[in-house]
Amino acid sequence: MSVSIFDSFLTTSEMIAVFDDQAVVQAMLRFEQALAEAEAAEGVIPETAARAIASVCRAPLYDIPALIVAGRRAGALAIPLVKELQRTVALYSEEAATHVHWGSTSQDVLDTAMVLVTRNALDLIDAELATLTQRLLELARSHLDTPVLARTLMQPAQVTSLGFKFCSWAAPLLRSRAQLQTLSSHALQLQLGGAVGTLAVLDDKGPAVAARMAAALELATPEAAWHTQRDQWIRLGTEMAVLAGSLGKIATDLSLMAQGEIAELAEPSGNGRGGSSAMPHKRNPVSSMIALAAAARAPQQAAALLAAMGQQHERGLGNWQAELAEWPALFLGVHGALRALNEAFAGLQIDQERMLRNIDALQGLVFAESASIALATVIGRPRAHALLEQLTRKTVAEGGQLVDLLVAAVESDESLHKSLDSAHLRALFDPVIATRPARRLAEQQLERMQAAQGKPPA
Amino acid sequence: MSVSIFDSFLTTSEMIAVFDDQAVVQAMLRFEQALAEAEAAEGVIPETAARAIASVCRAPLYDIPALIVAGRRAGALAIPLVKELQRTVALYSEEAATHVHWGSTSQDVLDTAMVLVTRNALDLIDAELATLTQRLLELARSHLDTPVLARTLMQPAQVTSLGFKFCSWAAPLLRSRAQLQTLSSHALQLQLGGAVGTLAVLDDKGPAVAARMAAALELATPEAAWHTQRDQWIRLGTEMAVLAGSLGKIATDLSLMAQGEIAELAEPSGNGRGGSSAMPHKRNPVSSMIALAAAARAPQQAAALLAAMGQQHERGLGNWQAELAEWPALFLGVHGALRALNEAFAGLQIDQERMLRNIDALQGLVFAESASIALATVIGRPRAHALLEQLTRKTVAEGGQLVDLLVAAVESDESLHKSLDSAHLRALFDPVIATRPARRLAEQQLERMQAAQGKPPA
Amino acid sequence: MSVSIFDSFLTTSEMIAVFDDQAVVQAMLRFEQALAEAEAAEGVIPETAARAIASVCRAPLYDIPALIVAGRRAGALAIPLVKELQRTVALYSEEAATHVHWGSTSQDVLDTAMVLVTRNALDLIDAELATLTQRLLELARSHLDTPVLARTLMQPAQVTSLGFKFCSWAAPLLRSRAQLQTLSSHALQLQLGGAVGTLAVLDDKGPAVAARMAAALELATPEAAWHTQRDQWIRLGTEMAVLAGSLGKIATDLSLMAQGEIAELAEPSGNGRGGSSAMPHKRNPVSSMIALAAAARAPQQAAALLAAMGQQHERGLGNWQAELAEWPALFLGVHGALRALNEAFAGLQIDQERMLRNIDALQGLVFAESASIALATVIGRPRAHALLEQLTRKTVAEGGQLVDLLVAAVESDESLHKSLDSAHLRALFDPVIATRPARRLAEQQLERMQAAQGKPPA
Amino acid sequence: MSVSIFDSFLTTSEMIAVFDDQAVVQAMLRFEQALAEAEAAEGVIPETAARAIASVCRAPLYDIPALIVAGRRAGALAIPLVKELQRTVALYSEEAATHVHWGSTSQDVLDTAMVLVTRNALDLIDAELATLTQRLLELARSHLDTPVLARTLMQPAQVTSLGFKFCSWAAPLLRSRAQLQTLSSHALQLQLGGAVGTLAVLDDKGPAVAARMAAALELATPEAAWHTQRDQWIRLGTEMAVLAGSLGKIATDLSLMAQGEIAELAEPSGNGRGGSSAMPHKRNPVSSMIALAAAARAPQQAAALLAAMGQQHERGLGNWQAELAEWPALFLGVHGALRALNEAFAGLQIDQERMLRNIDALQGLVFAESASIALATVIGRPRAHALLEQLTRKTVAEGGQLVDLLVAAVESDESLHKSLDSAHLRALFDPVIATRPARRLAEQQLERMQAAQGKPPA
Repeated sequence: MSVSIFDSFLTTSEMIAVFDDQAVVQAMLRFEQALAEAEAAEGVIPETAARAIASVCRAPLYDIPALIVAGRRAGALAIPLVKELQRTVALYSEEAATHVHWGSTSQDVLDTAMVLVTRNALDLIDAELATLTQRLLELARSHLDTPVLARTLMQPAQVTSLGFKFCSWAAPLLRSRAQLQTLSSHALQLQLGGAVGTLAVLDDKGPAVAARMAAALELATPEAAWHTQRDQWIRLGTEMAVLAGSLGKIATDLSLMAQGEIAELAEPSGNGRGGSSAMPHKRNPVSSMIALAAAARAPQQAAALLAAMGQQHERGLGNWQAELAEWPALFLGVHGALRALNEAFAGLQIDQERMLRNIDALQGLVFAESASIALATVIGRPRAHALLEQLTRKTVAEGGQLVDLLVAAVESDESLHKSLDSAHLRALFDPVIATRPARRLAEQQLERMQAAQGKPPA
Repeated sequence: MSVSIFDSFLTTSEMIAVFDDQAVVQAMLRFEQALAEAEAAEGVIPETAARAIASVCRAPLYDIPALIVAGRRAGALAIPLVKELQRTVALYSEEAATHVHWGSTSQDVLDTAMVLVTRNALDLIDAELATLTQRLLELARSHLDTPVLARTLMQPAQVTSLGFKFCSWAAPLLRSRAQLQTLSSHALQLQLGGAVGTLAVLDDKGPAVAARMAAALELATPEAAWHTQRDQWIRLGTEMAVLAGSLGKIATDLSLMAQGEIAELAEPSGNGRGGSSAMPHKRNPVSSMIALAAAARAPQQAAALLAAMGQQHERGLGNWQAELAEWPALFLGVHGALRALNEAFAGLQIDQERMLRNIDALQGLVFAESASIALATVIGRPRAHALLEQLTRKTVAEGGQLVDLLVAAVESDESLHKSLDSAHLRALFDPVIATRPARRLAEQQLERMQAAQGKPPA
Repeated sequence: MSVSIFDSFLTTSEMIAVFDDQAVVQAMLRFEQALAEAEAAEGVIPETAARAIASVCRAPLYDIPALIVAGRRAGALAIPLVKELQRTVALYSEEAATHVHWGSTSQDVLDTAMVLVTRNALDLIDAELATLTQRLLELARSHLDTPVLARTLMQPAQVTSLGFKFCSWAAPLLRSRAQLQTLSSHALQLQLGGAVGTLAVLDDKGPAVAARMAAALELATPEAAWHTQRDQWIRLGTEMAVLAGSLGKIATDLSLMAQGEIAELAEPSGNGRGGSSAMPHKRNPVSSMIALAAAARAPQQAAALLAAMGQQHERGLGNWQAELAEWPALFLGVHGALRALNEAFAGLQIDQERMLRNIDALQGLVFAESASIALATVIGRPRAHALLEQLTRKTVAEGGQLVDLLVAAVESDESLHKSLDSAHLRALFDPVIATRPARRLAEQQLERMQAAQGKPPA
Repeated sequence: MSVSIFDSFLTTSEMIAVFDDQAVVQAMLRFEQALAEAEAAEGVIPETAARAIASVCRAPLYDIPALIVAGRRAGALAIPLVKELQRTVALYSEEAATHVHWGSTSQDVLDTAMVLVTRNALDLIDAELATLTQRLLELARSHLDTPVLARTLMQPAQVTSLGFKFCSWAAPLLRSRAQLQTLSSHALQLQLGGAVGTLAVLDDKGPAVAARMAAALELATPEAAWHTQRDQWIRLGTEMAVLAGSLGKIATDLSLMAQGEIAELAEPSGNGRGGSSAMPHKRNPVSSMIALAAAARAPQQAAALLAAMGQQHERGLGNWQAELAEWPALFLGVHGALRALNEAFAGLQIDQERMLRNIDALQGLVFAESASIALATVIGRPRAHALLEQLTRKTVAEGGQLVDLLVAAVESDESLHKSLDSAHLRALFDPVIATRPARRLAEQQLERMQAAQGKPPA
């Protein structure tokens, strides 16, 4: 494991593997191989040298802990790796060894290696993200007519559709997926500038070598070396933080709705998941926990990347190195959060009956406003408003359901009774009817989102 | 002023005006007017009511300090403003007053108001950004052949072209301009959801009312209310932080090059700018100072926005309010930085002679690598390498210029002298010739950038 | 107002006044007066000059907006202020004018001014903090025997004492008060170093002048100028962030307990406070909202101060200026949060009956563990454990109260019935009895805390 | 290794070992052993059980990767560890197994384990900190009379003493050492609260068990469980960030003074340290690099800890877990920075001659102010001021040394020549004389600091 125990706990073994020491070193060697092969193709170095170099670009040949120690002295991990690579090539051909790393610089190797492993990280994230989005869209479709309390400022407010709520969770995920795709097309680019970004050693062959390398590594060709121009790269990092924020929003809502006293949703349990032997009633929302932890850390991780942008001149001192070290954190956290939420939603328990009971416990007061508006069309706004206000006060003071007081009031008043039908009145307090506006909006949104998501409904 | 004295110092009066109390309240009233007019057009409220409302949607009619006090009690600034608006409309028509804010909610007003003032902020930023980019492109063009030291890890490394360096400063600014345009097209959208985002009160008229309002306010129509789905909005904030980072990078380099002991660039002085009466030699880089301050603060400001994303249910408690309060900071800082750098570059002093002297002080050692490579083509790589290594050691130990030792060594060796011409050797140490690779890259980049910038060269 | 509208909303007018432009300028002039008077007393400048200077050290004499504009050009606000002060003194005595600011530097003035206004800020904070702590201690004392659900991972866990919970909220506040006192004794110190911190102009009179100034301004005398050694100052800022965190924890719990579905605590309402005309059942926790907003922002504000610590050489470029601008934010936020929570706790509504109902709704399962332990002493651990496990499963499956199943099981089993008394069994499920361990701990803690707080119980 | 490759690079293997998975698990087992032994001593569990438990509290007995996987499902790493511990004890005694972890909760184990390993981390840090401080004090003593440019706003300002500068670097380190000691005495405390912090299972034996455990583990006894009251713990984290800031300030100055064009200080080189084979003139400041990287990251790491403080009720969801995962980062970074700076200062190269040349290059203008003040005592302030101003302008315009112009001007003016001696004039421009005020302050400070540091001068 290349992360600490409490980080392991919050991420996935797949993502740990992506940024593992061995994986990073292998990506560095992949750069060196691609460089040699591109230079050979352009006639900058001999074909035989390129072949000799390529044959030893395999991470297991190198002593990684020793590289770290030497890298710390040298000031860059690439320096001892290149030295070891030269030494290893020289075992076969001393001449070939003089062509290792030709025209390049440490930062070319390290940045490109980070790009290569980050592409793998993004693939993992995209897969989980697609699954989570699809799950939410399906849940949304199934619950268009399920009434649930909407809550504002952490207080019950009015009734909405559970499907509408699932839509609102899914929408930012779709946007992040699209955004990650766009940003990746710029950020996943080769780094190749040589000592000071001018490709001076390669003279006029520089651009051609770069183009060949980019093609071989399936990366974009940069307009210029981006040694100390990190904006395209950092945008990828900030988008991960935005995604973490959207996941944190879902986890916030989920954990609030899963509270024992609300109990509208629950994460799956059983088989050691979130249970407590001492407290048999507990079902801890461990997926929410992981997503909330990622969301709590991501803003600071993004800030660390942003803070490292002021890199001096042609290679930064301290800030570039800080950026490299901070980089994996966002991917580890987001992948952990996505995986955790996918586990939660795969077995999500939805208690529709409890949702109704929670609505009911508010004595119909959540319908007061819409009832007033509906009545106004029959008996005029001032009269409707006055009536509801009086009955609302009475409900709060005396308990009971507002709708019962309303029906009683209407039935005991000749003039009202003429224009207002009791069944119609009761319908104004029907949670399912109250979800209609939300349902309508959700249906439209759902269609658009499913189209964007690009998979047919199950 | 609506910012503290030490913030005033780091921003511009124009940007302070954008986020001024009066401006925000006016934007809130603009929302209310547009809402009333759209509802009238859709037959939701009477035309006369809309006219009555519109006629009093003018900020100077309202007591802003009193609104703040009442807003603090109420929990949202929009609550007392709507109440005051109703009271004011009622002076003319009690009936019209019942239609104020119809179907909307506090967050609709506040978020849309923030969108409206932010559009003004973005206009100011775009203008300064265009100017700064253009200045840098022009400087780049003028200095394609100007040799200057490239520096890595804060040490002189090799020689580059000053024009290439200016290009590298300009490129991220062009990208940020484009990115801000793209992100704005999503982020500058109407907020309209009513109490819990379902537009319930407007029933099936909701979408039409929203479309009319968006058109009237020249904003995008959202796919759904974004009360607690802040991703599109926050991306705009993180892009401001990325831009601050790119400006900070420029200011870092500028302030390093302006150090008294390096003195290659200087900010303009005179008329009280950055001078010190007690220390007549001082020319303080005050523009760099302002840009560095903005860059130092931006990462944390972006983090604060990201940290506020986990907004609960249908309206956040504490986090939404934190976001509103944090929002202006990035725009204030970035505009201050842009203005300051524009002032610096408008009168930038470039000491080309000093740049040459700084190169010269390194005794030709910065050319050792490229000289070795060039010689190799004539006398073979091993011999070239050995020769340069020996002479380099001698130069470091004894002082003097490497090129003189090299010419002397060659001239005193019959075999070398045959194949190597002294003039040719001296050319390898010519700073202007050394800038050629950088120049070549810069020319291509410049053409692309000028095309993207969309203005013809001056 | 010297803060933006959305900041006004989250702080207090008293704290805004502390950091107001006028207040800061007055503090700067207070420095200049103290400097002149101390120098006169030490014979460095004439007594008459000191008197002339002192007579015009009054902020209303100066055009603050003009100072800001000039300060931005100059690179420091103190530069134009000193110039204006000299000009003003010169109206009375040209000779005296030459003694203005003698031996000092801009940063001396600005840092000391910040120290002076910060002392006022700390006084405001201490007063609110003392009140809030006292309120919590009194609430704790009154509710030692009030049972309430303890919750872990956002799920009901076991029963605790409400008084114990109030204790746990109060303890960090007492610690922060003590810590602020300790840190202030170091941080509230004079800044006086002259141009580069060496007090060169004052020669051997420097320390004596500093000592007199510190005495006059009632500040600590620093061991050395702290122009770019900010650790003592920044510690004060990080402690404000720690305090914000402790307040945020209280607000988190309060807002969770105030949710409509839990309803154990409620913030006071009425008179426009946190209400909603459209939703009569709502009682928005606006105090919690303000405290949560402060807690959400404080970590980033502390990070901004920490990030500004790497100040170059003898005066920082950009970072010092960023620190000055960031400084007030933490005090504004914390004072707003303290005031808001004081308002909440002054009228806190505690629904003890609802607390019991919430416990009751968990069917006695929260007592399963302690019942098992108690039974074990009578019938042995294995038997007790097996019995409770079986009954717990049954309770979860069938509903009802665990205690009823337990009593029935015991009464129907001869052997158990002999050793177990039904009344004793029922006592194991008595919430008040269950609070005893918490009560015991709370009593001890309360005594210590009240002693530390230094006020007798009301 | 339990950190990623780019983190390894910036820290030390000793600190990695402190927070290693195995070390954390061993610390958790140490808690379980101390708990069992304390409970046995208090008669809560049998002595034999305690012995059985103690005998298997050894980390190598457990499969750590499996614990991580199970911990992720369970929601806390302690849950599977306790289960495995029970299983292992049961191999020897089923009865003893029922006493494992008695009365405790997951968070007790994890928090105490973090406290135990953090104590080791603090020991490592203190040792490096003491060494670095001592080195700086010794350097200060040796260079009290060494003149060096003081610089403000990144421009040469006046002359100071290099010893004074070293003092200013050392002072914050001494303060941090003292502060860490004070904060540790509170933060290094036992965590023991049981399920909800009330120690309910231990009934009235709770405090005695806690006292015994604290004694056995050599930790402070807390006033109350601090499950969700993190202030004392977090203060330790913020102090690490303050220390990182002070180290970053040193590294900033060091890297600026080591620039090739300034070259007053240099980090040691040779043996692969900071060199570049392609660029023989380069001596990269790799220690500064590491310290700058730590300082760049620390503010965000502290912010992450602060942001995790709002932990809900009796155990946090997401935030506590985030805190655990973030905790090691500050210690890793600071230890890396301290070690790196110790390496730099152990072989620091000080070029006093270059310091004089850099002063000289400013043509005496850095002495203009003090010369004017000195002359004023002989010829009056107005005449002195006018004379220096005129000559300063001339020096800037024409080059040369101000002192030569001054002597020439005086000697060519009969009246001046009478009162001013040329040798005296030249002394005003003597850098060594100019360091006297700084030297005086440094000597006093040095004495105080050496006393506080507690070691006799070498």
